[in-house]
Amino acid sequence: METVTSRKHPEIQSAAALQKSAELRRETGTFLAEGARLCADAAESGVRIERCFFTAEAEEKYGRYLEPVRKSAKETFFVAPHVAELLSDTRHPQGIFCVCAMPETKRPLADAPQTLVLENVQDPSNVGGVLRTAEALGVADLCFAGACCDPFSPKVVRGSMGAVFRLGMHFFPETAPCAQVLERAGFTLFAAAPAGGEPITGPCFPGKKPAVWIGNEGNGLSEVALALCARRVTIPMLGRAESLNASTAAAIVLWEMVRGEREEKFDG
Amino acid sequence: METVTSRKHPEIQSAAALQKSAELRRETGTFLAEGARLCADAAESGVRIERCFFTAEAEEKYGRYLEPVRKSAKETFFVAPHVAELLSDTRHPQGIFCVCAMPETKRPLADAPQTLVLENVQDPSNVGGVLRTAEALGVADLCFAGACCDPFSPKVVRGSMGAVFRLGMHFFPETAPCAQVLERAGFTLFAAAPAGGEPITGPCFPGKKPAVWIGNEGNGLSEVALALCARRVTIPMLGRAESLNASTAAAIVLWEMVRGEREEKFDG
Repeated sequence: METVTSRKHPEIQSAAALQKSAELRRETGTFLAEGARLCADAAESGVRIERCFFTAEAEEKYGRYLEPVRKSAKETFFVAPHVAELLSDTRHPQGIFCVCAMPETKRPLADAPQTLVLENVQDPSNVGGVLRTAEALGVADLCFAGACCDPFSPKVVRGSMGAVFRLGMHFFPETAPCAQVLERAGFTLFAAAPAGGEPITGPCFPGKKPAVWIGNEGNGLSEVALALCARRVTIPMLGRAESLNASTAAAIVLWEMVRGEREEKFDG
Repeated sequence: METVTSRKHPEIQSAAALQKSAELRRETGTFLAEGARLCADAAESGVRIERCFFTAEAEEKYGRYLEPVRKSAKETFFVAPHVAELLSDTRHPQGIFCVCAMPETKRPLADAPQTLVLENVQDPSNVGGVLRTAEALGVADLCFAGACCDPFSPKVVRGSMGAVFRLGMHFFPETAPCAQVLERAGFTLFAAAPAGGEPITGPCFPGKKPAVWIGNEGNGLSEVALALCARRVTIPMLGRAESLNASTAAAIVLWEMVRGEREEKFDG
């Protein structure tokens, strides 16, 4: 196994660039995962691991996590601590990194029983939180419309707790084609609006194949999205209406979307 | 109005200390709020403002927010930018700060129709998020049991979006007395557990006066809390069960707790 002591090593340079550039991630179809648990999670989720980098200290401390990663990785590199620093996006790096291939989407979007569409959602903590919650609550397919924060950026990958390795993610650089694809696939399009829509606790989702649209943190959904969604839904609130954070609002929408399935599984 | 140019000015020293010390906040019954919107929110929520500090730049930029604050504040100080920096807990300070009196709890806990109990919840983002969501969804009284993160710490005050100014907050340094007070007040105590409890979507809350306990991020509820709660509830999940973040789990619990009230208001 090669030991890398130079920050100028080509594999280090390109892994560090993946950390920073969404464009490079898109072009290469790869991204960087950092941290012992997260890298082990990638391996265990069947993600293709192109390269793995770790320090001697990490090998000693995180051997249990490192094992599945080393087994899966096509190439493995020992790196000096100052080289690991260059790859890290965290304050206390654990010294384990993987270049991962973006997972293949498991099934066509048309086969999903429901989906959440994020349009221009830009805060990485919000996107990471939504992915994590979607996976926990059982919504396995997500759409990204317009200029969303890249879900393969380091902060989202970490915030998602590895959900990016397993969710079906569908990307649409423009809003209108996303809406068209969803409609053709038999979805009913719901715009989540802060006020004025049907209450999401009512009978709006059952019997539908819902695609609920969540808009940008500051500006909400675009005019185009609002025009293309057949229905509008609102989270009815007893308190101060402006006060739900984007990822909390998404969590409540997700929770209500799968209510029928959940009741079937747990109550029936 | 006095202009303060020295970081050693006694009012600056004591305001800066409030930013850092939970003990000092408890002793004095005051805390520091930072930012134009947040300080305006404090004034408009009827919080007693002891002292207000702002820079010349802030006066120019945030005049509209500053007005209600200056009207409410007992004392007002112009501060130089390097003095404002000492008071700030943020990366891009807006140069407006208030020393606020902790708001009086509006009603006795016994009169609350429901409450959420945070036991040893320590992450300020989680506590801030829970307060914000509780207010939005209409749960107006919260209990803090054991060693929770201080809700008057700068990060929680900001993360709560001002909910700390308006919620009823009840503090219990020990778990057992908190449970006893709640029981005597007629609450049914529910422990939120990651698995094994009644599903919270079932008929567990209606007709009760629920007090739902949420535990520490890593360790869950203490043995004492688990022993004292009459019932145990779980969020039924269709996906990976370990994957809900503490404040998202709390949001779903809060959402289900007020389901009855919400349906009465919006559907009936």
